[in-house]
Amino acid sequence: MSVTAPRGFRAAAVASGIKPSGLDLALVAADGAGTAAAVFTTNRAQAAPVVVSREHLAGGRVRAVVANAGCANAATGDGGLSDAREMAAAAARDLRCRPEEVLVASTGVIGVRLPMDRVRAGISQAVARLSPGGGAEAAQAIMTTDTRPKEIAVDVALAAGGARIGAMAKGAGMIAPRMATMLAFFTTDAAVEAPLLERALREAVGASLNRITVDGDTSTNDMAVFLSSGAAARVDGERDYAAFRDALVAAARAIAEMIVRDGEGATRIAEVRVEGASTEAEADAIVRTVAESPLVKTALHGGDPNWGRILAAAGRAGVPFDAAGVDVWIGDVWVAEGGAARAYDEAVAAAAMREDPVRLRVRLRGGTASSWMWTTDLSHGYVDINAHYRS
Amino acid sequence: MSVTAPRGFRAAAVASGIKPSGLDLALVAADGAGTAAAVFTTNRAQAAPVVVSREHLAGGRVRAVVANAGCANAATGDGGLSDAREMAAAAARDLRCRPEEVLVASTGVIGVRLPMDRVRAGISQAVARLSPGGGAEAAQAIMTTDTRPKEIAVDVALAAGGARIGAMAKGAGMIAPRMATMLAFFTTDAAVEAPLLERALREAVGASLNRITVDGDTSTNDMAVFLSSGAAARVDGERDYAAFRDALVAAARAIAEMIVRDGEGATRIAEVRVEGASTEAEADAIVRTVAESPLVKTALHGGDPNWGRILAAAGRAGVPFDAAGVDVWIGDVWVAEGGAARAYDEAVAAAAMREDPVRLRVRLRGGTASSWMWTTDLSHGYVDINAHYRS
Repeated sequence: MSVTAPRGFRAAAVASGIKPSGLDLALVAADGAGTAAAVFTTNRAQAAPVVVSREHLAGGRVRAVVANAGCANAATGDGGLSDAREMAAAAARDLRCRPEEVLVASTGVIGVRLPMDRVRAGISQAVARLSPGGGAEAAQAIMTTDTRPKEIAVDVALAAGGARIGAMAKGAGMIAPRMATMLAFFTTDAAVEAPLLERALREAVGASLNRITVDGDTSTNDMAVFLSSGAAARVDGERDYAAFRDALVAAARAIAEMIVRDGEGATRIAEVRVEGASTEAEADAIVRTVAESPLVKTALHGGDPNWGRILAAAGRAGVPFDAAGVDVWIGDVWVAEGGAARAYDEAVAAAAMREDPVRLRVRLRGGTASSWMWTTDLSHGYVDINAHYRS
Repeated sequence: MSVTAPRGFRAAAVASGIKPSGLDLALVAADGAGTAAAVFTTNRAQAAPVVVSREHLAGGRVRAVVANAGCANAATGDGGLSDAREMAAAAARDLRCRPEEVLVASTGVIGVRLPMDRVRAGISQAVARLSPGGGAEAAQAIMTTDTRPKEIAVDVALAAGGARIGAMAKGAGMIAPRMATMLAFFTTDAAVEAPLLERALREAVGASLNRITVDGDTSTNDMAVFLSSGAAARVDGERDYAAFRDALVAAARAIAEMIVRDGEGATRIAEVRVEGASTEAEADAIVRTVAESPLVKTALHGGDPNWGRILAAAGRAGVPFDAAGVDVWIGDVWVAEGGAARAYDEAVAAAAMREDPVRLRVRLRGGTASSWMWTTDLSHGYVDINAHYRS
């Protein structure tokens, strides 16, 4: 399982003291520098580790990623940038590679500097602990308000033989990834050239981690990283690429589903679909507006088949469509046709609001474009967690 | 107080049985048809009364507005449009005016047809009850999840003499008006030509009702209506206009503040300001994203001076700005400078999060444009109200 499932990777986690207790620093390292790809948050306020990892990735080859929980190293100015660079340099010293071959990631409180003495000591301990079975503890160490670790491994059959993809992620709040996600780490032992690795990562993230929302709040620290050790078969030709991409999409969707199911306070998840839009961008805009609507999310919490709120949210998405041509389904229950109520059985619709996941579907009569997202309900738990947790 | 404060207006409310109990139908009528202006929701899904009122307003002169709570007459198809027209026609019959001189407004559950027998009977009773003291009961009759009626009257000194502006409104949830508001009714006895009335209404709404948000969910039924009886002095020239507009802005701001203070589940309100933006549209976009961020709203609920969330929300507003040039204040406490934490007293910042209203201020270094909004906290109460109320 996790990021050490593919050959050629080791991982470790330590309790470095950045958080008051528990594992809080994870290290994932390939046996040698390999190809890498990453996508980062589109938030204008980019955390220091995002800035530094983007710089290092430009070097083309990556040996390791070091990640901490408990402190986001965001909104920390030039000092924070130095800290992020020092994190990479410390790991590079102990791993005997170049600092540019180390990516860094942080998650936790915004606006607070990292305790660098603890970070440096933690990194040294982590390097000493690196093991091929360390993936599980690494997945533990990056949790913040997560209630459970998120990890997966999938096999992929290539022309030249088998390979694997492993992944771990964290994320429960400040989740509305756009072109990236909270922190997600993918590894593979397939030998993949960097441009192909990036293409696969972008395709997979677009079909998974960019399709989840817990609260609409895109983080300053979002980062999805993909490392290849090249220890197994090579991805060669479009057929191999398709198999590889499909396996990565499966892994990324599983990770995305784990994140949304562990969304802060979530008691229920829904899949929101929009069909019949003029363009994919318009379908995306409507899907996102419905998926992030507080009124839709509270109706989901109450199990109330309140399709009027779905229609109202779609209508405010900033997309020009004909409201008299909108159909709405809750599960398999067709509740609204041509923008108005159908005769449906309220009890059956209410039951559809308790399915797992709840399926909310909006069909326009504008074209053939479609989109989808996963979202959570909005519960007391979300309020409790966020009224007092300092993120 | 309320819409009957200006001369030449009468109002009434009745319990027509649209809601299980209580006042649910309001009528505001001028003694004769006068000038009128209105702004309507920008939601693509426009309720039947919005469609019909827009048609009737095009006629140029308005005698009365009939409004009901308990049923939004939204997503009701052609039948709902007929019902809205019949509401206007019923009031016109009893008032002895043309149906086109009556505007209609509805608020309540979406996707349900009006019980027209009760509506017709209620309108007849309301016409019989019309009185110059009926403003207070009319303000009561349009409430849904509102916990208190919202009404005000202000005086305005014109060159030719005094005049008054009265107003009533409802709204507690599905509040994020854009170019309109839930239901707001303004009256004046000043004699004002229709184009000037509309200009004043648009300016006032842009500086008040369009600057509040409870949940980001723009309604299908938003409508702000302004009726002039012409029973008092005439608005003549730019100096009169300015006095008139300022009085209307004061009334509209007071009404907007009442709505946001009565926001569903609200225990606290905040004024969010953005300064130093390149354009007003960019300032608006950042203000709205911060004001609607669930993480900012839960921090507000917890009284947590969590400025990192303010910065993160600003950063995801889709506006290109330099995050290293952002300053943030909570009340008078300067908490972040140049995108990073300042040394500030946490206890003083926490106290600023308990002021009324809480003042959140973001300053960019991009230009001179600014914007502001009022928002509520996100509490258990919001979840309770909306998990089960069918809106």
